[in-house]
Amino acid sequence: MAKIAIIGAGTIGLSFAALHLAKDPGCSVAIYDTRTDLQEYVSQHLPGYLVDADEISCIRRLSFSQSLKSAVEDAAVVQEQGPENGDFKRSIWPQIEQHAPADALFWSSTSGIPASEQNQDMKDRSRLVVCHPYNPPHIMPLLEVVRSPQTSDDVVERTLQYWRGLGRTPVVVKKECVGFVANRLAFALFREACSLVSQGVVEVEDLDEIVRASMGPRWTVAGPFKAYHAGGGQGGLRSFLDKIGGTVDSCWNASDEDLRQGKIKIGEAWQESICRQAQDVYGVADTAERDQKTRRVLEAVNE
Amino acid sequence: MAKIAIIGAGTIGLSFAALHLAKDPGCSVAIYDTRTDLQEYVSQHLPGYLVDADEISCIRRLSFSQSLKSAVEDAAVVQEQGPENGDFKRSIWPQIEQHAPADALFWSSTSGIPASEQNQDMKDRSRLVVCHPYNPPHIMPLLEVVRSPQTSDDVVERTLQYWRGLGRTPVVVKKECVGFVANRLAFALFREACSLVSQGVVEVEDLDEIVRASMGPRWTVAGPFKAYHAGGGQGGLRSFLDKIGGTVDSCWNASDEDLRQGKIKIGEAWQESICRQAQDVYGVADTAERDQKTRRVLEAVNE
Repeated sequence: MAKIAIIGAGTIGLSFAALHLAKDPGCSVAIYDTRTDLQEYVSQHLPGYLVDADEISCIRRLSFSQSLKSAVEDAAVVQEQGPENGDFKRSIWPQIEQHAPADALFWSSTSGIPASEQNQDMKDRSRLVVCHPYNPPHIMPLLEVVRSPQTSDDVVERTLQYWRGLGRTPVVVKKECVGFVANRLAFALFREACSLVSQGVVEVEDLDEIVRASMGPRWTVAGPFKAYHAGGGQGGLRSFLDKIGGTVDSCWNASDEDLRQGKIKIGEAWQESICRQAQDVYGVADTAERDQKTRRVLEAVNE
Repeated sequence: MAKIAIIGAGTIGLSFAALHLAKDPGCSVAIYDTRTDLQEYVSQHLPGYLVDADEISCIRRLSFSQSLKSAVEDAAVVQEQGPENGDFKRSIWPQIEQHAPADALFWSSTSGIPASEQNQDMKDRSRLVVCHPYNPPHIMPLLEVVRSPQTSDDVVERTLQYWRGLGRTPVVVKKECVGFVANRLAFALFREACSLVSQGVVEVEDLDEIVRASMGPRWTVAGPFKAYHAGGGQGGLRSFLDKIGGTVDSCWNASDEDLRQGKIKIGEAWQESICRQAQDVYGVADTAERDQKTRRVLEAVNE
């Protein structure tokens, strides 16, 4: 029975624990976290992540470790989601390396501290790779497998295999970069959204509706390159850019101009009005409904 | 029986004709286009747009007009998708205005020529509004209802009512701007995608997979504002930006820096390699499969 050691039991840690337990009936999960109410906390929150799973079987395969050593010493995978702090991460991997089996996979769930920074004090820097989820990982299929210049091909390959075996969608990010890929893409659109709302072109709720009725479903079925490749007909993306490139360029130029004028930087004045609109329109978010709908959408596209 | 006049029978015109015929059994559609093989062309291509519809009933309610006058003279709606050319559009609306009923709605499907430019020679400039679809309109729910400073509230209101009655998602764009909203948002993400691929961070196919496994389904269920509002928990978007704003800002700064260095402008060198990757990976696109999956996804989220 392959053992997964979950280091750090925040919401990401619990969501991953639930994912492993629910998708691989042959695994056990050991959770290690320094919080004093760990068992109580996990017992209270984990069931919420175990929708559609055999809860009794999952809980039976779950254990709590009293030390980092006991958590990792016979683990096949060590998955870390501790504090987003370079010093913490640099210091924990040598300890994990010391106690874990020689062939255990080492994954960090960090959204921003690259493996090349985390691995600096490890004996074998090739063992560590970032597996950055899209929240919440028990629902969203994506794992960004961000390799450092040191990460070995073997580690990448075994990491991909593991996640594919769980029915997830691991994707290799070949070079470390600020924010990795998913957040970079999403934040680029989000900035344009903030800019257009700030200019009074469209309301917060209406902009959301625009995305839900167009790009959302389109990009669930085909990513942006494939979508525009189809838009170009027989000649593909090349034809698309030949035909529509002028429009694309004028949109990019208009965006640049608006961003310069509108100063869409975090902390500037535009933020307050948009946050107020979101609060007025949405109140407190119902993530349970969101997650249920997301499951249905993912099932529909994979049918 | 309300008559819809479709002016211009390209792919958008046919897709709209099919949409009206299929979704409103009480309407008739008259198509006007200067192409000489109009009837043959429509007969050949329209059935492809009539999936899940009663084809015989639809075709029975379809007619071809020999002149612009006869097309519009008893129409409830005149929907224009002629050439994307300001002179053409400025010249056609006064003719339509002359022959159409006084209460007919006037819609342009343009993706870029605002109503305020098209309406310049009309007697009553308040009658025209842009209804920009997301391609193909018989599948994608979105209509961007882009009002000019002259468009009347009554025209906007009746336009929204019509589309809502057809089960579509019309959204008001309050100010004319380059590219309107949907394309501006999509192109912002697309630019970041081109930039990241050009830097060798990720492959074309892998980037598409990242979007399909994360933002696509997320934004099908909740638009970007609602999604990040939920990400902030109880405190909503304000908390999200307080907590994650630093990361967002560093991603935006990194993107700006990359764009400056990478010169992601249409026609520059980066384009060729990306187009070749898309061609190698995707070949000729299968839009039928895309449309079928999109229908399933839209059904799933609206269940």
